This record gives sequence, structure tokens and C-alpha cells, in this order.
Amino acid sequence: MIKNRIEELRKIMNQKSIYAYIIPSSDFHQSEYVGEYFKSREFISGFTGSAGTVVVTMDEAGLWTDGRYFLQAEKELEGSGIKLFKSGVNGVPEIEDYLLEVMPENSVLGFDGRVISVGEGEKLREKLKSKNITITYEEDLINDIWTDRTTMSESKGFLLDIKYSGEDFVSKLNRVRDVMKEKSTTMHIISSLDDIAWLFNIRGRDVKYNPVILSYAVVTLDEVYLFVDENKLTDEIKAELNKGNTIIKPYFEIYEFVKSINEDEKVLLDKSKINFAIYNNIPSNVEKINSINPTILFKAIKNEIELENIRKCHIRDGVAMTKFMYWIKNNVGKIEMDELSIDEKLLSFRQEQDKFIELSFNTIAGYKDHGAIIHYSASKESAYKLQPEGLLLVDSGGQYYDGTTDITRMYVLGDIPKVQKEHYTAVVKGMIRLSMAKFLYGCRGYNLDILARGPIWDLDLDYRCGTGHGIGFVLNVHEAPNGFRWKVVPERNDSCILEAGMVTTNEPGIYIEGSHGIRIENELITIKGEENEYGQFMEFEAVTLVPIDLDGIDPELMDRKEKEYLNSYHKKVYDEISPFLNEDEKVWLKKYTRAI
Amino acid sequence: MIKNRIEELRKIMNQKSIYAYIIPSSDFHQSEYVGEYFKSREFISGFTGSAGTVVVTMDEAGLWTDGRYFLQAEKELEGSGIKLFKSGVNGVPEIEDYLLEVMPENSVLGFDGRVISVGEGEKLREKLKSKNITITYEEDLINDIWTDRTTMSESKGFLLDIKYSGEDFVSKLNRVRDVMKEKSTTMHIISSLDDIAWLFNIRGRDVKYNPVILSYAVVTLDEVYLFVDENKLTDEIKAELNKGNTIIKPYFEIYEFVKSINEDEKVLLDKSKINFAIYNNIPSNVEKINSINPTILFKAIKNEIELENIRKCHIRDGVAMTKFMYWIKNNVGKIEMDELSIDEKLLSFRQEQDKFIELSFNTIAGYKDHGAIIHYSASKESAYKLQPEGLLLVDSGGQYYDGTTDITRMYVLGDIPKVQKEHYTAVVKGMIRLSMAKFLYGCRGYNLDILARGPIWDLDLDYRCGTGHGIGFVLNVHEAPNGFRWKVVPERNDSCILEAGMVTTNEPGIYIEGSHGIRIENELITIKGEENEYGQFMEFEAVTLVPIDLDGIDPELMDRKEKEYLNSYHKKVYDEISPFLNEDEKVWLKKYTRAI
Repeated sequence: MIKNRIEELRKIMNQKSIYAYIIPSSDFHQSEYVGEYFKSREFISGFTGSAGTVVVTMDEAGLWTDGRYFLQAEKELEGSGIKLFKSGVNGVPEIEDYLLEVMPENSVLGFDGRVISVGEGEKLREKLKSKNITITYEEDLINDIWTDRTTMSESKGFLLDIKYSGEDFVSKLNRVRDVMKEKSTTMHIISSLDDIAWLFNIRGRDVKYNPVILSYAVVTLDEVYLFVDENKLTDEIKAELNKGNTIIKPYFEIYEFVKSINEDEKVLLDKSKINFAIYNNIPSNVEKINSINPTILFKAIKNEIELENIRKCHIRDGVAMTKFMYWIKNNVGKIEMDELSIDEKLLSFRQEQDKFIELSFNTIAGYKDHGAIIHYSASKESAYKLQPEGLLLVDSGGQYYDGTTDITRMYVLGDIPKVQKEHYTAVVKGMIRLSMAKFLYGCRGYNLDILARGPIWDLDLDYRCGTGHGIGFVLNVHEAPNGFRWKVVPERNDSCILEAGMVTTNEPGIYIEGSHGIRIENELITIKGEENEYGQFMEFEAVTLVPIDLDGIDPELMDRKEKEYLNSYHKKVYDEISPFLNEDEKVWLKKYTRAI
Repeated sequence: MIKNRIEELRKIMNQKSIYAYIIPSSDFHQSEYVGEYFKSREFISGFTGSAGTVVVTMDEAGLWTDGRYFLQAEKELEGSGIKLFKSGVNGVPEIEDYLLEVMPENSVLGFDGRVISVGEGEKLREKLKSKNITITYEEDLINDIWTDRTTMSESKGFLLDIKYSGEDFVSKLNRVRDVMKEKSTTMHIISSLDDIAWLFNIRGRDVKYNPVILSYAVVTLDEVYLFVDENKLTDEIKAELNKGNTIIKPYFEIYEFVKSINEDEKVLLDKSKINFAIYNNIPSNVEKINSINPTILFKAIKNEIELENIRKCHIRDGVAMTKFMYWIKNNVGKIEMDELSIDEKLLSFRQEQDKFIELSFNTIAGYKDHGAIIHYSASKESAYKLQPEGLLLVDSGGQYYDGTTDITRMYVLGDIPKVQKEHYTAVVKGMIRLSMAKFLYGCRGYNLDILARGPIWDLDLDYRCGTGHGIGFVLNVHEAPNGFRWKVVPERNDSCILEAGMVTTNEPGIYIEGSHGIRIENELITIKGEENEYGQFMEFEAVTLVPIDLDGIDPELMDRKEKEYLNSYHKKVYDEISPFLNEDEKVWLKKYTRAI
């Protein structure tokens, strides 16, 4: 099927004299997760991971994806004829370098200009000009062959109440305008859906897992425009938008609107967030200032009300996760369960909780060697049955009206070999060392990453991805600009200074292909510690409250301070979670939060 | 005296209508340590630290220096009327910002263009243009008031034999030319003395502690020029230079030479290493490529022969340091000794060693609260007498024909309070944790710094400077581009990828003003560990071999792995050093390298 689709695409490419065509995983807003309508890359390749780009040339087809997806991609691409290019691995070319190598002089590269960012498009143009390769980006060729493509989402949005958001739209708008003035700009175009959702205090259901509304926004010093399907807006939303005198325009009108921008305007925009088509529709004599959206940093620093909501939300999420752990540890081997059925069970525990909306991403449940596939997604064909043995990895999270969660826990379902205990303990050590960090204000993720990674590097192992990412508030589960990663990767924008109020995941792991995968993930709030003559000290508050399965730990391998941290963490878990459990669960939790 | 000198300077400034005059600590080569002739900043301010810049305006005089020198500068500036500006401290303006604030519109800023780098000069020009401030840099005003100024050094140089350097001049020259070609340049101007010394395999005595020769070099694709006082060159040096057909020209002729550069040339130069005068003498139509000197990276990566020499050199330096430790621990309170006399004693132990040339920097011996002054230099007036109590810090190093050393040890001279033991143990823990690091190739100092700093940050303390610096081979004790520092400070150029063969110091500390200062410093060679599917793992080899005074350590505060490292380090110290000791010293060393 995939082979046929690629052949059909090649036919059209041939008609249009396009030698190579790029299909990324993005929508028109450079989103990481996208609505069904936008899943062209999945359609053309069969690869279902959240990150990856397909390139089809007249001779070859390739998928570029990162370390999280190597094993999954290998499986999903089997028989498709599509070659896997492992991004970031030594000797594997970047897409631009690959195209420069394989494309003939004077040939044509194609892509849909709405799903490629300005930055990416300009990089390609620059790279390929030495071979006089031209770029055509006006057409979505996938649309011609995707006959049963769904329509775009028409879901209704909702207003995020001030008791959750902690700051009203007008106050946020004023902060954005302050930055615009600081940067001597008069207009700001926002295309990233989570930035828009944060700014207007609106949420939606247009993208699974990401509670956003398909929209664009334009802010000037005295006006504000929202480009959106008006049917999605509730009366509540309209009332909130009205406070800022928002002018509502149809979703697609942004493309005409930017054509009429006056030459006196100075436009603040983020080239990595705006698509080619919008950018090129702006008259060329309008000055454009390429700078990160001010909303990125504002959104990442959660206010006190958001933080209080997040803490409450994590107690409920922790209750669901703890009940799930009790259920699985006590029922494995007694009742039938597999990698898919436990996802449903976990969902049902979350659904019992107050304020639950939906999952924040597709649950990853990987048993035994499936745990080594970092973003594994079980299917009916692949799903393992669970037995009272080995390790189970479950990475999941929820969207609630008062927060977004992301948590990974391991479940030791029976005896495990010594080496798996060593690996498990190393991962726990890394997770704890980063959680315990005390550091001076000014540190970035790359200063701290080795705390989590060190115990794993000590074993001559690595997990080939960042240690953690920022997380939104009732928004995207991956959020810039904070994170933990030892290398600076500019396009990821995750190495900002760690500010008080930022929430970042802490999720080291060990993945042994064909054997087992281990990851433990807590969310950390950056908080202020002591301020003295040396500066402002910063610390982390672990806001995730779920037991870490003690059955996997070899206490002999842990330092005293690590054990003290774990014991005090488990005490807090018991204190916060047990009031919401039944008696059997409580007794069990007491045992699984015991001091070691 | 200082006040008079500043008044004299102001008179000349007034005559020349100069409102503000800058006196940095550099020579014509942007060196960190400089010959006596170049110590204008010390002359005008009395401040003797290695880093600092004086600005004299018609109304005020200020000294900018960094955290290492805050306490020392406060003492030395007393009564001078010069205000101390603590660089890097919140709220303290940078020099440019200060000048922009205090200088009137249309006024004139002056400095000697030979002692200011292009980068610094351009930064000042850019910053001050909004007030229409002009810059005059043709004259050295200090020369007019410094009546008893010494002449420039006329010391003889020497050739560094191939058995030490491991690579001959011609091979090095070819490597430089390869980089020039890669960067499409045809000429390279080198002004930094250690780069020149490394390239030509020459050493000298023109700067105390730094075995360099005052010189400039110009490399083209087929010619090479050395601008130097020919009297300094031995026959051996001339023979070596001859292999590369080096054209020798008088030292000051560089300024005329660059005026005649042909407009076809493309000149590779490092704006942070070249002075204003040279740069401005190059015809403006000559293309200049601003890039780091290729020799910086070459020089930092020590070859196998250099590394073997360094290891041998450290055994002899370790013998001197160990004998000194034995002497001081056994004689304190019995014979008279003070902060100055012990410097002499330590020097005598080094002088007994084979291949010793001179010290690699001014020995820092700080007893009790003097230890808190990071780069303290005792004088007859300030020197404390040593008693059998408290902590003594000694930071010292030697230049040998087969290496350069830099080591800090603490000496526990008697009982010390609990808090000092805690601090001492925290510093040892930090030093050990960084030494034990295992990391993937690609890491930089900022990824690892927290290993050393963490145990100190855990106490809400900090040491306000980098954790370590690169070190030269029979060259400068501070060498780019490697180092350990959590913040990226571009002008320090010390955050390169840690390559195998680099040598870096590891010297965390705790400094409590008015009480005590603690620093422990080993040198680390970066070496390759296992290479596997995750990449190339890297490790450190501690090349410094001197006991760490166990009398200061509280073993209860150390983790098992830290103790294991310390015990195995001490075993190595005993094995390598004891063969060169007398029987009493051996017995003592056995005790002081015992497992804890």
C-alpha cells in the first residue's frame, strides 16, 4: 500500500518535473502533534511517530527521525521500501546534505509551503543553490493522492477560567505589547497554536492530546486579530476576547491579511514558528524582526495560581496512577492483560478523577523488549500479554482543566535479572540526583543534565535523547524553552535559563534493544532557594506523586543521600495520595512507600 | 604615591583634552602575565593582581577586576582613592557602560592602542558612539609619568627539543597552513606569544613565569616571518627556524610590514589576540577573516610525547610537593615559618628536581583568613607566621623542560573547627566527583562543572570563578580553549569540546572572608574510554600526584565511590612518589596515603 502511494506521488512529481518532495510531520502551525487532517507523513510512509520527515525522490524514499523512534521506525517501515535515516547518528547525512548529494543540477525540490517553517525553507534554499536547484512550495501533492482524507477539525473550544489561568487575556496582551515596544516593533504575527491558546486563555479539541484551536493571531500596538472558525468560539470565549477588543476573522484569511501589511509596520515574528506561505505573502518592503515569540517565555513561567492548580492536579493524577499500579501489581498473572488493555484500564482510572479532559499523549506501554522502543505504541498485532515476570514501562499523562501531566513508571512484574536491577537502580539514581540539584540562578539544562545522565554514562550506556522537556499548563506536553539536554540543539530551543515557576520533566532511561527498557519520569517545578552574597540559589520541587516500584531497586547501589531523598519522596507520596485510596490500597501503598 | 601618579596622569589628559583613559593589564600581545616593562596598570594603581583594568576620568578612578581578586584589590587599593568595581557582580556596570554613563557628549576616550585588543577597542567605539565620543589610541600616557620604567626584556631564548615537544616546527607549520587553506585565507598574523612559542618550538624568559619570547609571526602559504630581537635567538633556534625557511625581522617591524600587505591577500587573524595598532595598519582594502588562531586548538591537544613528558614531570613536581608537605607538617610550631619563608622552602624543593626552570606563577600561600583571598600574594608586611593550628592554602607550580605544573594543596596545621572540616570535605568531594566523571565525547566544561561545584552549592556557597583552566606545555599556566565553568563567557574562550590529550585543572574551593579559604587542585588529562554504539566515552586521568591532607577530611560526609577514588588515588601517589623519598618521609607518606 505504502509502495503504491509513493509510486502515485512519483507520477505526479514526474508530471510537474519535481525531482524530490518533502513531507514533514507538521501542520500549518509547525505543531509537534497534529490533527488527523495533517497526517500526510504518516499517510505516505506508515510511520506513526510524532517526529519524522519523509523525502521521496525519483529513485529513493527516506525517513529521517531521531533516537526516540529508531526501533519503532524500523518496524513500521518494514516492506515499505523506505530507507531509515537515523538523525544525529555519526555518518548519517542531514536532509539538506542528502538532497545536495542526490539531486541533479538544475532540478526542482517540492514541498507544501504551509507545513515547512521559514527557517527550514531558507536553509534548504541556501544549501541547494550551489547546484542551482529551485524550490516549488505552492502545492500539497499528498492531497491529490489521499482520496479519503478527513476534513479539518470543527470541534468547539472552551474558555480557560481565570481560576485556572491566573491571569486574564488583557494582562497577557499588555505584556506582549511591552516586548513588542522593547524590540521597536509595531506588529506581531503568532502562528503557534499553544502560544495563541495561552495568550487568549482559550483551549480547544482540534488536535488530539493538545487542547488548542486552529487559529492565527496578529497583535498590533492597539488592535488584536484572531483568525479562527467562529463556530468554534463559545459565548464565554467571545466575552473574554471582547475585553481586548479582539477582531475575529476567518481562519484562512490570514494569508490575504498579511499581503496588505503597511510598509511602515515593523513585524515581530519567529521564523521557526511561521510557515513559508505566510512569510512570503508579507510585502517584501515590510521590515521583519526575527525573534522568539514573547509568549514562549511568559507561558513557560507558570504563575502562582497555575502552580497551585498543577499541584492539585498531580495529586489526582497520582491517585489514578497509584490505583493503576496497585491493580497491575496485584492482578498480573491472575487476570488476562496485555499492552493495549492496560492502557484502557489506566485511562479508566484517570477518567474517574475530577477535571479530567483527555490524555496528554498516546500512552506508551512497553513490556520486556518493547520497553526499549522509546516511543513505542502498541497495536493489536504487536501487543504482548503480561506475565508475572520482567519489566513493564508505562509513560502516560493527562489533560485536566487544572493542569497537564506526564509521568513514566516501571512495574516490576516478577523476578528480574541482576543486570536489570542494576540498570533500574542507575536510572532511579540519575532521576534522584537531578531532582536533588541545588544550583545558582543562571544555570541552564545543559549544566545539570549530567546529574541525571552520569549514573548511566558510568555504565558505558546512554539514552540518546534529552533528559527532560518543558510541559504546558492545560497545553502541549512538550513546551519550549526549558529542558535538560547536554548538547545545545538550537532548533529545539530547550536550553534557556531555568526560571522559578518553570515545569520540566526529569526522565533518564536505559534502553537495551531486544531486552528491556527503563525510564522513570517525574515533573519538577523550579523554585527559589536561599538568596545570599553568592546569588539566588534554585532548587526543584517534584510535583509528580506516584511510588517508584521498590522491587526494582538494589539499595546497595545507592548513596545515603539518594536513599534519603527517595524515602522522603515516598513519605510525601503516601501522605498526599493515601487519603484517596481504599483500605487495601492504603496498606499496599504503605509497603510500597516504605523507607529503604 | 598612587594619588600623585593619578594626578600627573590627569594633568596630561587635561592637556590633551582626554576625559577618560584606560590602562589594562596587557602587553602588546594581549598576554595575561606580562614583563615588568608592561606593568602600567600596577604602576598607576598599586594593584598587583594578574587581571584588572584601571579607568581614570577627570573626576574618578576605578579598577575593574574579577572575583578572584576582590579581597586583594580592596586591600591594595586602600587609600589610593581608586574605586573597586567588582566585575560580574549584579548591579556593577561593565567598563563600557560606566564610560557611557559618566563621559560627557563629544568628549575623548584615550588608551595605548597596542595594549587593547581589536575586539575591545571596537566594542568601546560602538558603545560610545551614541554620545559622539571619539577615541585616541596613539599614545602611551603612562610612559610620560613613569620615569624609572625598566627596559623591555633582553633574555636569551632556547629551543624546545623534539624529545619534549614531540613535533617539529615544519610539521606544525603545515598544520597551520592546512587550516589557512580550509578557511580560504593566504596569510595569518599571530601576535599571541604562547602561540608563537608553540609553533616555532621556541621558549624564552621575557615574561616571568611564562617561558615565551616577545615576538610576532606572519605565516603565508609559502613564507613565514618571525619578528623578534635576533639577539635572543640561539644557534639551535636558528637551525630549527631555518628548516621552515623562516625570515627573521626586527621586533617592531611588524607595524610597517602589515602596512604593505597586498590587497589580494586574505588575512586570517583573531581580533581578540591582535592589538588595535596592528589591525589598523593593515590597508583597509585587505580582506580580514576574524577567526580563532589555529594554534590555539593544536597547542591544547597535547601529543603522546608531550603527555609522557607531563606524566614524568608531575612525578618530580609531586616529589617536591610531598617533601614540602612532610617538612611543613612536621616542623610547624617547632621552627619559625611564615607565608613568605615557606614559598622559599617550596621553591628550594622544586629547584632540587631535574629539569626545573622557574615557577609557573607567583606562589600563593594563604594562612587562615588569607586563604580566602583567591590570588593572595604575601608581602613582608602582610605575611602571617604559621602556628600549629588552622588551615594553610598553597597554590603553586613549576616550569620544567618537560612540562608546566599547577597544584593547590591544603595543609591542616592543627585542630580545625567542625565547619572547616565540612568545607574541606565538600571541596574534596567536588574535586573527586569531577575527576571521576565519565562522559560522551562532545561534552564541554559547562556540562561537567556542576560535578565539582555541586557539593559546594549544596551548602549555599559558591567560589565565584571557573572550576579549572587549560594549562600549557612548558608554556602559560592559563591556556585556552578548554576549562570548566558553568557559564559561557565568550571572551574567556574556555568552553570547547573536551578533546583527548587536553590538560585542565580541577580546583573547586570555598572562601569565607575573614575566616578561611580552601582549594584543592589536581590537573586532569582527558583520555578516551570505551567506544561503543552510544559513541566515544571520555574520562580523566589525574596527573598531579601529591597527597590530599587527610587530617581535614570527615569520612562520614563522603560517599563510598568518593572514598574509593581517594584511596586509589593515594595508593598511586605512594607508588609513584615514595621511591624518591628518604625513609622517614616514606613512613610518613604511607600514613598520609592510607585508605579511609
